[in-house]
Amino acid sequence: MGPELETKHASKSDQIFHVEYVVLYRFKDGDQSEAIHQFKRLIKALNQIGLDTAVRPATDGALFVFVKAKDDQLNKAIYRGRVRDWLYGVRQIQPGADEEGTKQEITEADRLRTIYHMITWPRTDGGAGITPKLGDWKHVEAVFPLHDQDANKEWILTWSHKTFLSAQDLDQIRAKLGERVAFYFSFLQTYFTFLIFPAAFGFGCWALLGQFSVIYAVVNSLACLVFVEFWKRREDDLKLRWQVKGVGVIKAKRRQFKHEKVVVDSVTGEKILVFSKKTRLLRQLLQIPFALGAVLVLGTLIAFCFAIEIFVSEIYPGPFKTYLAFVPTIILSLMVPTISGMLTKIATQLTDYENYETQDSYDVALTQKIFVLNFITSYLPIFLTAFVYVPFAQTIVPYLDIFHLTLKTTQPTFRINRSRLRRQVIYFTVTAQIVNFGLETIMPYVKRRVLNKYNEMQEEKKGNNSTQASQTNTLNQEDSPAEAGFLRRVRQESELSEYDVTTDLREMCMQFGYLTLFSPVWPLVPLSFLINNWIELRSDFVKICIECRRPAPLRSDTIGPWLDSLGFLAWLGSITSAALVYMFSDAENGPDGTTSQIKGWALLLTIFFSEHLYLLARLGVQTVFSKIETPETRQERGQRYMIRKAYLDTIMSEQDTSSELTKQDQEAPIEEHEPQEITRESLEEDARRFSQQSASPADMFWARQQGWKESAQVGVGLIQQGYTASLKEKKKL
Amino acid sequence: MGPELETKHASKSDQIFHVEYVVLYRFKDGDQSEAIHQFKRLIKALNQIGLDTAVRPATDGALFVFVKAKDDQLNKAIYRGRVRDWLYGVRQIQPGADEEGTKQEITEADRLRTIYHMITWPRTDGGAGITPKLGDWKHVEAVFPLHDQDANKEWILTWSHKTFLSAQDLDQIRAKLGERVAFYFSFLQTYFTFLIFPAAFGFGCWALLGQFSVIYAVVNSLACLVFVEFWKRREDDLKLRWQVKGVGVIKAKRRQFKHEKVVVDSVTGEKILVFSKKTRLLRQLLQIPFALGAVLVLGTLIAFCFAIEIFVSEIYPGPFKTYLAFVPTIILSLMVPTISGMLTKIATQLTDYENYETQDSYDVALTQKIFVLNFITSYLPIFLTAFVYVPFAQTIVPYLDIFHLTLKTTQPTFRINRSRLRRQVIYFTVTAQIVNFGLETIMPYVKRRVLNKYNEMQEEKKGNNSTQASQTNTLNQEDSPAEAGFLRRVRQESELSEYDVTTDLREMCMQFGYLTLFSPVWPLVPLSFLINNWIELRSDFVKICIECRRPAPLRSDTIGPWLDSLGFLAWLGSITSAALVYMFSDAENGPDGTTSQIKGWALLLTIFFSEHLYLLARLGVQTVFSKIETPETRQERGQRYMIRKAYLDTIMSEQDTSSELTKQDQEAPIEEHEPQEITRESLEEDARRFSQQSASPADMFWARQQGWKESAQVGVGLIQQGYTASLKEKKKL
Repeated sequence: MGPELETKHASKSDQIFHVEYVVLYRFKDGDQSEAIHQFKRLIKALNQIGLDTAVRPATDGALFVFVKAKDDQLNKAIYRGRVRDWLYGVRQIQPGADEEGTKQEITEADRLRTIYHMITWPRTDGGAGITPKLGDWKHVEAVFPLHDQDANKEWILTWSHKTFLSAQDLDQIRAKLGERVAFYFSFLQTYFTFLIFPAAFGFGCWALLGQFSVIYAVVNSLACLVFVEFWKRREDDLKLRWQVKGVGVIKAKRRQFKHEKVVVDSVTGEKILVFSKKTRLLRQLLQIPFALGAVLVLGTLIAFCFAIEIFVSEIYPGPFKTYLAFVPTIILSLMVPTISGMLTKIATQLTDYENYETQDSYDVALTQKIFVLNFITSYLPIFLTAFVYVPFAQTIVPYLDIFHLTLKTTQPTFRINRSRLRRQVIYFTVTAQIVNFGLETIMPYVKRRVLNKYNEMQEEKKGNNSTQASQTNTLNQEDSPAEAGFLRRVRQESELSEYDVTTDLREMCMQFGYLTLFSPVWPLVPLSFLINNWIELRSDFVKICIECRRPAPLRSDTIGPWLDSLGFLAWLGSITSAALVYMFSDAENGPDGTTSQIKGWALLLTIFFSEHLYLLARLGVQTVFSKIETPETRQERGQRYMIRKAYLDTIMSEQDTSSELTKQDQEAPIEEHEPQEITRESLEEDARRFSQQSASPADMFWARQQGWKESAQVGVGLIQQGYTASLKEKKKL
Repeated sequence: MGPELETKHASKSDQIFHVEYVVLYRFKDGDQSEAIHQFKRLIKALNQIGLDTAVRPATDGALFVFVKAKDDQLNKAIYRGRVRDWLYGVRQIQPGADEEGTKQEITEADRLRTIYHMITWPRTDGGAGITPKLGDWKHVEAVFPLHDQDANKEWILTWSHKTFLSAQDLDQIRAKLGERVAFYFSFLQTYFTFLIFPAAFGFGCWALLGQFSVIYAVVNSLACLVFVEFWKRREDDLKLRWQVKGVGVIKAKRRQFKHEKVVVDSVTGEKILVFSKKTRLLRQLLQIPFALGAVLVLGTLIAFCFAIEIFVSEIYPGPFKTYLAFVPTIILSLMVPTISGMLTKIATQLTDYENYETQDSYDVALTQKIFVLNFITSYLPIFLTAFVYVPFAQTIVPYLDIFHLTLKTTQPTFRINRSRLRRQVIYFTVTAQIVNFGLETIMPYVKRRVLNKYNEMQEEKKGNNSTQASQTNTLNQEDSPAEAGFLRRVRQESELSEYDVTTDLREMCMQFGYLTLFSPVWPLVPLSFLINNWIELRSDFVKICIECRRPAPLRSDTIGPWLDSLGFLAWLGSITSAALVYMFSDAENGPDGTTSQIKGWALLLTIFFSEHLYLLARLGVQTVFSKIETPETRQERGQRYMIRKAYLDTIMSEQDTSSELTKQDQEAPIEEHEPQEITRESLEEDARRFSQQSASPADMFWARQQGWKESAQVGVGLIQQGYTASLKEKKKL
């Protein structure tokens, strides 16, 4: 990879004039002198930490500050970063001072990340402290690197021809886009590969056993469990492979963090900005009313629409029935995103209020809240159908007719709609996925195309209309011909949206939830996901490469809090699967619509056993996985061992030189002559001799036998005496 | 502690002639030349690693080899050990080479442990490789240090006067007896302190609410949960306080380990003795039939005796009823220990067969099996009463009369014995504890006293009878008067049994089980345990000091696998408590003896909620505990920080010297003059100038603005133009 990458990098880098980062500085709003002042500070700050800058006009009311690192400064920063990694235990091998010069191992992501840290980290951590959109830097709209268009095109092309990404592919993603994105794609890849098994098995069950098969439910539950545990194991390997284990420890304080007081640490003497953990804990307790409120609001809405839908479609005999059936769907489509948005906003404010010190802990806290919201909107409708509508419909449905719209005389005998549950699951796992793909990938693409076309036409129109008109787009001056193409491209990229890996992870996590929670309803669910994810992987990559600005390559050693969500969903799946299978598998053709057959105690016993078998199986799987040694862990163990051995050997050899004198003595064999006769007289003589020298009792104790050979002789004598004595005794008897 | 300890140590050490370890060499059985040969090897091996030896006669057919370390060798070994600790991350601070001389921090336990490792560790790890009773060393019966009698006496005296042991007391235990024992006493101390709350609360509930109180069950469950989590937290602190965090990694291979093949590690090049993990996993699967078999055998026995007992006491009307009632108790008392012993033996063989590489993993595997056995013998009787006898007695009991001993005509109407459950719990939590105390502490004491008296009398008799008779006890020679007292004492200590901390831990763990599983039956359970444990703590200490040989001070960073058992019991408690309370709290005066009132679904729902509330609460408690920073963790964090800071500062300052030249330039303010007019002409001129020099496009791109000041000026110009342009536009509109 070394030299080849270097040359490729050179040609790519020439294309974009060695520009590493683009700082988008927007000054249109606000007062002029303040904008100028901030801009000067920006340029100065960038140069002070060793970055070259070049300024070019962006679009109307905005500037580009192109940033390039001075080679020696960059190398120093990279070296410093590696030493820090080593001190925090992220790297195993201490970076030698000579490594400072070698560029071999430095990936593009390494370089870009280091520069990004130089720009954004606070001054105390050796950065320029520039925080886009925040505080003193509100004019700085974005800091982003430029896409490597050639590499992107090549990747998109190759990937469309192969089913599985190789480890090298993932390494390349890591080298270009950083570990955080690479972890997402690794996860997606692992998840995709895993899905093959449940897809095949599910298809078989669907064809042979039908829905609500016990066998499918058990196998699916176990497979999901194994997948989650396998991914945890895989994460551990990737951490080592990419040298990011424990990287979460190295993190700068969030700029938004507000401290209550400054405390001087008694051990280190450093000043620490403290925010009381108790206060935070109390604030975190607000999550409980928030979650309850969210359940209440969204739950009521969903339950309400659900009730209307059932009423309209299954009881209501009146006019406009066909049109009225759409009412709940319209209400849901309009209200759920609005309310979700509001709740997300509240969640964000709540998380802000909780005042976390690091971005990581902030993200975790926010993710947990978002997961609750998504859980409600994604799964509640199916939960309602499965565990409220089907078992209790006979009791509840008559009450839905609150307006007494049905004529008493013509009231039809209500029958539960058997296929509702399956239809709903299919909707969420197929239709919704397709719609989502359209919204997420095709829509933006079309929009961009149309917009570009429109812009071009506008441009042309302008050009034709009046050449002397102020071309606000280029700030009254034309780009130098050599740079024109480049600048047009940068302007385009600057208009793209930011990429957020969390959204993609959330989507996959929620998808996994359908698989664990409801797939026994319709065993083709994994097959649908398998197909969807083949496309998803590629379309997500296209999204990063084309639809979004290139993200700064940040490091991470996990897919983050979503991992816990996956574990939780797998666990919950062991409960819902058991309940679904128990409730519906009896009836030949789907649920039979009466509660009479469902025994409460049997249902609960099924759940109890299923859940505890799941927990037991999890313990087993975890034990087995913890014992498997992969090449990565072996490598790490080996490295640790080598370091220790080298160090200990040094110490041993240092110590050995001093004790060499006595060695000769030790090697000598014990002479095999008769032991000295030890008599009372000789002992007393010894004692007398010592008492004259006024030695301590201990000295006398140890001096009784001079040297280890004498000890050996005395011992041998005693053993011989012992044997003789026992022989005598035996003879006596 | 430093100097005071030193002097104290000196006086104590004089008392025992500076003897550090006693090796008991027994040669009576077997052939003489082999015994002599092994003895010579022993002495040689000890001396080769730098230990002084002195030989004295022990009792009949045995020798003492007294061992003392050469000061410089010992210091070197301690230093090597510390370096190893540091390399494995156990110690934070790198031991400086100068530390080799300083003795300040070296505790008695440090010294004794190091010598113990010198004696017992394999040659490859720098020891003499002497493994008592094993392989080449079968004549070596024991290797043990001598008690510090003065300190022991003082401790026993002080402790009997205070309720709580202070942190200093525990530190002293650690300094004398090592971390493993200190962890046990810390646990016992923490457990004792914790018990005060449930004891007080339980007493209140007993007085006010009676048995099977919901409030008591919930509070007790939560308290147990908090205790387990608190202890985990406490363990983490103690690890840091005693510098043993992760000490389990540093361990020698078990001598009994049998390798399948030798593999050369591809990374390190070292030869590794490999035993296939798959084979071991398969062998571990034998645990399942073992556990099932144990449940079956012990379960059948206990159920059988239980059935007899109920039959005799509650149905049987015939003669000898009073005597027959004792039959099941006698059967149980005879059979359970026998069968338990057999099963323990099988468990040991099974664990041997699983062939673990390290002692730690061996202990874990054995402990798990022992836990299963103890679980059955301790809790099954109560489980049978609570969940089989009470709910199903009406149905089952009539079938017990298989011999039709009851006369049909006089058959009494069977009534469930209401107080059986409570009586049983009281038996296990009070009576059994007292009996156990008697067996464990008072019996050995009395036995030892009697035995000593008897020995003395025998001695006297012998002395009177014939002075010329062979005094086998002292191998035909009298001890030197100065040593006589010392040798008598060593002979006494050598006859004591070995101390095993696992037994004591198991006892506490099983006791905790009664508390979590059954204490709602009788809320005075914690009070009984509180009293018992006050005595237990002291009697265990007496046991270590007087009843047993002094244990070699081994290190450990946890109470080991028992921790998992505690967690499991607390979890299971959330299920049994809920079930007990639901089943029995309805009836005013204990269980009412009919199953009719117990609804299956309600019982299961209660269990389901109770268990999941428990798991939720555990998550909460764990989160809270993980956020609390104790002095120990703060200290560790501080130390880590200091090390990193020192290192990074060095690097930073090294790098700074080289970049000082550019600093001056950077400090200069940006001149506040009018920006240069940038016209199309000037730009083109620039371009032309560069093209003549045949520079690359990138060079030209960056050279357009010379230096950062020019960039700043250009930017300022662009901003001003932007504001002017927007002003113009506004005017136009």
